Amino acid sequence: MDRFLVVSSDCHAGLPIKEYRPYLDPQYREILDQAAPIEIEMAGKASESFLIKEINEQWRAGNEDVLTGAWVHEQRLQMLDADGIAAEVIFPDGITEVNTPPFGAGISLGTSEEIVPELQWAGARAHNRWLAEFVSATPERHIGLAIVPIVWDVDQAVAEARWAAENGLKGVVLPNMTRHHAGYNHRRYHPFWEACESLGLIAHFHSGAAPMEQYFGNDWPNTPADVDNPGAVGAYVSEVSWWTFRPATFLIWGGVFEQFPKLKVALTEAGTAWMIPPWLRLMDHHYHDKQFSAKMGDFTAHLSMSPSEYFRRNIAIGASCTARADAEIRHELGLEQIMWGSDFPHPEGSWPHSHEQMTRAFGGFPEQDVGMMLGENAVSFYGLDRDRLLPIAERIGPKKADFISAPT
Amino acid sequence: MDRFLVVSSDCHAGLPIKEYRPYLDPQYREILDQAAPIEIEMAGKASESFLIKEINEQWRAGNEDVLTGAWVHEQRLQMLDADGIAAEVIFPDGITEVNTPPFGAGISLGTSEEIVPELQWAGARAHNRWLAEFVSATPERHIGLAIVPIVWDVDQAVAEARWAAENGLKGVVLPNMTRHHAGYNHRRYHPFWEACESLGLIAHFHSGAAPMEQYFGNDWPNTPADVDNPGAVGAYVSEVSWWTFRPATFLIWGGVFEQFPKLKVALTEAGTAWMIPPWLRLMDHHYHDKQFSAKMGDFTAHLSMSPSEYFRRNIAIGASCTARADAEIRHELGLEQIMWGSDFPHPEGSWPHSHEQMTRAFGGFPEQDVGMMLGENAVSFYGLDRDRLLPIAERIGPKKADFISAPT
Repeated sequence: MDRFLVVSSDCHAGLPIKEYRPYLDPQYREILDQAAPIEIEMAGKASESFLIKEINEQWRAGNEDVLTGAWVHEQRLQMLDADGIAAEVIFPDGITEVNTPPFGAGISLGTSEEIVPELQWAGARAHNRWLAEFVSATPERHIGLAIVPIVWDVDQAVAEARWAAENGLKGVVLPNMTRHHAGYNHRRYHPFWEACESLGLIAHFHSGAAPMEQYFGNDWPNTPADVDNPGAVGAYVSEVSWWTFRPATFLIWGGVFEQFPKLKVALTEAGTAWMIPPWLRLMDHHYHDKQFSAKMGDFTAHLSMSPSEYFRRNIAIGASCTARADAEIRHELGLEQIMWGSDFPHPEGSWPHSHEQMTRAFGGFPEQDVGMMLGENAVSFYGLDRDRLLPIAERIGPKKADFISAPT
Repeated sequence: MDRFLVVSSDCHAGLPIKEYRPYLDPQYREILDQAAPIEIEMAGKASESFLIKEINEQWRAGNEDVLTGAWVHEQRLQMLDADGIAAEVIFPDGITEVNTPPFGAGISLGTSEEIVPELQWAGARAHNRWLAEFVSATPERHIGLAIVPIVWDVDQAVAEARWAAENGLKGVVLPNMTRHHAGYNHRRYHPFWEACESLGLIAHFHSGAAPMEQYFGNDWPNTPADVDNPGAVGAYVSEVSWWTFRPATFLIWGGVFEQFPKLKVALTEAGTAWMIPPWLRLMDHHYHDKQFSAKMGDFTAHLSMSPSEYFRRNIAIGASCTARADAEIRHELGLEQIMWGSDFPHPEGSWPHSHEQMTRAFGGFPEQDVGMMLGENAVSFYGLDRDRLLPIAERIGPKKADFISAPT
């Protein structure tokens, strides 16, 4: 084949909020009618204070039709084809501020005391039902992820995982931030990891959530960031990857991969993946070197492997719009761990210029390495049907010839 | 001189809790009488679940007399002399579980809703009064730090900073964790930075505080860590440095060093200082590279320098028991930023074997570099009276000859 098989490890889809109505359990539909205008207004405010409205609007101009691929399946396939993508992982939240599931069930998946658990569950289930339907037409091209607000009730989370697996979804998205709830090292989550392992569902943590009130103040998003909180955005972007890796810190030390050795976890949109080797080195340091922490006793007895070994065995990185700097350190980072992604339809993503982004990131590296990062790693990690994807890649994949030389 | 002038950037001192009584404002003394037994019991529980009592007791055996140097000045001087230390920075909390100022005013300096601000302030002031007295006999050898629980009331914090400067203290210790209060980028703290800058007080963040309930569960320290929260200690030790650097992330991005260019900050007991270069690289990346965050607008306009430039100008690292790995990357880390420390009287520190620890960490490196890391950097950073310290160093400092070769 003279083309690469590309899998995007990071795409987003979701209905415009009001269109979730028929997918909601009936008792929540009237609440949606009342809440939708408020949620739309709040999202707009977040857009004005945190996101720059003009830049987003400019970026979207002329792409309005294809952007409906955030929820219209036919447009979705056209988008994937035009972008050279054979298969994709689908997270919630399509066009930011527009396609977020209701009641706080979007990608940020809040766990603070402001969230009403029953409603968040209702919003999550509505999205999961819609998504199961959305991926059903061309299941070989989509890895749909169910939203699971696990912190409130682990039994419900297990039930939702079962429902997801039975309905063609292939993974779950969990909150990054457990806040005042048990951390991911806690035994209460074990039944859920067991369910994921036995059902073959992959657990996902996606960048975005962070304690926004700590950067922007307790009134966010109702006040502009820069008035009282200068530098809020800088602090946020410098920490957001840490909040995404953090669940893995807890899972690794908690012995979750020791007890559930086949559990797989993806950390997605880890924008600065070159922070991963120092993070692994730090954990390994504390695993091997006890001088600093001797007074705390032996805290590694329950782990048969070092943190970086669990990482290599159980975790993959959704390296959306992989930076060339990350591809350069692929062996240190873990070549098999890196999965490219387009982040459609987000403005920081590569769509609709994925071809240029890919060749800039990977041009000049060995063909086999490029193939792994662009798609083959994801094929293995997600257990995709390669035979069904190859004919698609042959038709729409980026040509290998375009990756021969490094960008000038 | 054939000996090094050594300054410990990290030592601890504090009275046994009941002995703070006469230093408390009278209206809080009865509360102390009631609270002291409970506080001692809670500290004991923390010691049993988090710290390993036996290891600590074993480590202390035979050193009981010198350990009273945690609060007895004469013993203090003997300890410093025997350890080869000419001058020291004094944080609160002497012997863990024993010498913590009352009412949550210790080094962890809680900011959660469980803290009673008025009482924490009372405990902090009692410690500050005692410490001012403690350092007054040999002021050239001590850099006493006032405890300032800044989050509750910035005016009070400014007043305490003035009191500290007027009473011979040379810096302040602030909470690492602002929790639900404004982050350190917030303008409300500006009057305090202005006060520190004009009074020449150095602001300190010391390792230790972290959201313990997230690792150990909401009942900590009342339940043993490993029952429901396996790996809690591993996750804690892997994150604790991050929580110590974090205030600097907020200060840098918040433009605090831009507005208060002479403000100095020390980050102390940053056990794994080799995590600092990646942290600086990450912040510089976001300062220079806007693709990822273009949708968030220009968030660097208020900064005339890059994050790492502010770090080099305004921040020093209290590299307690400096690891050889940290000394090896001293130029990348910032040679002038590294200040050795003994961490007396904590079991993870180098006391009473500082001579061996120093030669192991620094043996074989250029004499000038070693001298800077052991003491000269701290002399500059804290503005110490070198002429008064030199005769002391000539008497008790470690011999340069012992640092000529690398450890085998």
